Amino acid sequence: MEVSTVTVTRMHAGRFTEASDQLAVEEPLQIQLLYGSSGNERQKNLSVTMRTPGNDEELAAGFLYTEGIIQNNAQLTSIIVGADGKNTVLVILKGNYIPDLQSGERNFYVTSSCGICGKSSIDAIRREMEYPVSTEPVHIPASVLHRLPDVLRKQQAIFQSTGGLHACALFDKAGNLIALREDVGRHNAMDKLIGNAFLTEQLPLRDVVLLLSGRASFELVQKAAIAGIRIIAAIGAPSSLAVELADEAGITLIGFLKPDRFNIYAGPERIAESAGQI
Amino acid sequence: MEVSTVTVTRMHAGRFTEASDQLAVEEPLQIQLLYGSSGNERQKNLSVTMRTPGNDEELAAGFLYTEGIIQNNAQLTSIIVGADGKNTVLVILKGNYIPDLQSGERNFYVTSSCGICGKSSIDAIRREMEYPVSTEPVHIPASVLHRLPDVLRKQQAIFQSTGGLHACALFDKAGNLIALREDVGRHNAMDKLIGNAFLTEQLPLRDVVLLLSGRASFELVQKAAIAGIRIIAAIGAPSSLAVELADEAGITLIGFLKPDRFNIYAGPERIAESAGQI
Repeated sequence: MEVSTVTVTRMHAGRFTEASDQLAVEEPLQIQLLYGSSGNERQKNLSVTMRTPGNDEELAAGFLYTEGIIQNNAQLTSIIVGADGKNTVLVILKGNYIPDLQSGERNFYVTSSCGICGKSSIDAIRREMEYPVSTEPVHIPASVLHRLPDVLRKQQAIFQSTGGLHACALFDKAGNLIALREDVGRHNAMDKLIGNAFLTEQLPLRDVVLLLSGRASFELVQKAAIAGIRIIAAIGAPSSLAVELADEAGITLIGFLKPDRFNIYAGPERIAESAGQI
Repeated sequence: MEVSTVTVTRMHAGRFTEASDQLAVEEPLQIQLLYGSSGNERQKNLSVTMRTPGNDEELAAGFLYTEGIIQNNAQLTSIIVGADGKNTVLVILKGNYIPDLQSGERNFYVTSSCGICGKSSIDAIRREMEYPVSTEPVHIPASVLHRLPDVLRKQQAIFQSTGGLHACALFDKAGNLIALREDVGRHNAMDKLIGNAFLTEQLPLRDVVLLLSGRASFELVQKAAIAGIRIIAAIGAPSSLAVELADEAGITLIGFLKPDRFNIYAGPERIAESAGQI
């Protein structure tokens, strides 16, 4: 149930008519964590996010992974969708793994010790990045990038009917679609995509291009960095801190990606002007 | 400092060139609260949000108000921007006002007692709405709404240079712009707009139209409802839960607003087909 059909009053050319319209579904999801050894279990409500239902297991895994609460699949016993009502997901950890929840308010910004600034946020994230920045080259010709927005648009089924969803997608170096996730919240679409890679043990995501349907925020670049992604292309604009983080983390960041143009904000060495240059 | 200038590698028509580009600035802001009677003060770090610097005082006031932590200006002693570093804002409450912080994790969803569902979220918000839904009619002709996107675009100075900001704006019933706030986070733009009204004692915002530059999410409709707003128009799509909340709260919700068309998702009685019908 990712789309909901409603009746609307449509105004067009000066006249009201009744019409049917489709909406992207938005519902809260509570992520719950069960951990501790047998006889000493603890349950904690970690987070509530407004999301589009579907792929909730991936969303929970991706959220816990990019927040640094879990590092690998072996720490998980199971993920139960709907354990405590339809909009809940319960993540059960192995008894011998005690996560670092830091007084229940895990947050890169809050835990960064030197106060609140973009610099300290970036430093905190660098400490969390499990995969060192690889210097091994990945090269993608500009022509492959130019094709991606069109592929995304054709695959974004729900967006086409509702106009209301963000998408994150992974492509291989030849521009073939690997995975696509949509959500009313862009951070959720990203958590679902990374959660899928986490659960299927595909991390780090080394030789892929991450495509964002909208803008590139700090938070999205942060999640990508933690998953080992090295090339990010956004159809919209990047923010200043997204560019700073990409630069520091050795990530190639592209913005305003269109069929005939784009801007490279960080890491231009990975993009070739033409296929013949690779 | 809302815009940052960087050098980018621009790809256009198959060729790389160096170019200058402007980015919307994104930086974390920590909202801190100081409360309690003399000799018994407590300070609490409430929230960190990634925002575009500027209007931080409004952002803090709007956040505290729409989260239900403060209800009126008389509860405030002062708001100090940069008290503990440039990206902090300290809100000092009157000694005799002890806010209900509910174990430090104030959140409509988390505190709703019957579990997590859209319905319980909406119920919780209804309890928080300070201003009862007024049955007093407000009528706006469609022709006024059609003009708003163009006014917004002309005023959105930062968006024009960066492509990277969300905007929220208030208009009067004749379509005149009252206030406009921009931010990399749409919830921040909304908090700034409502915070401005809160600090200048203009709440409830009864006879205005709220214009959203993007999509209408549950969270934005929630903040509008708490500020007493009765007409919301979004240039993008609404989500399912945004429509449900608008319907329950007696709010008129318009989506896909364009110069010649729009859809009314809730409260169509407030919109007239032509000016002559009012």
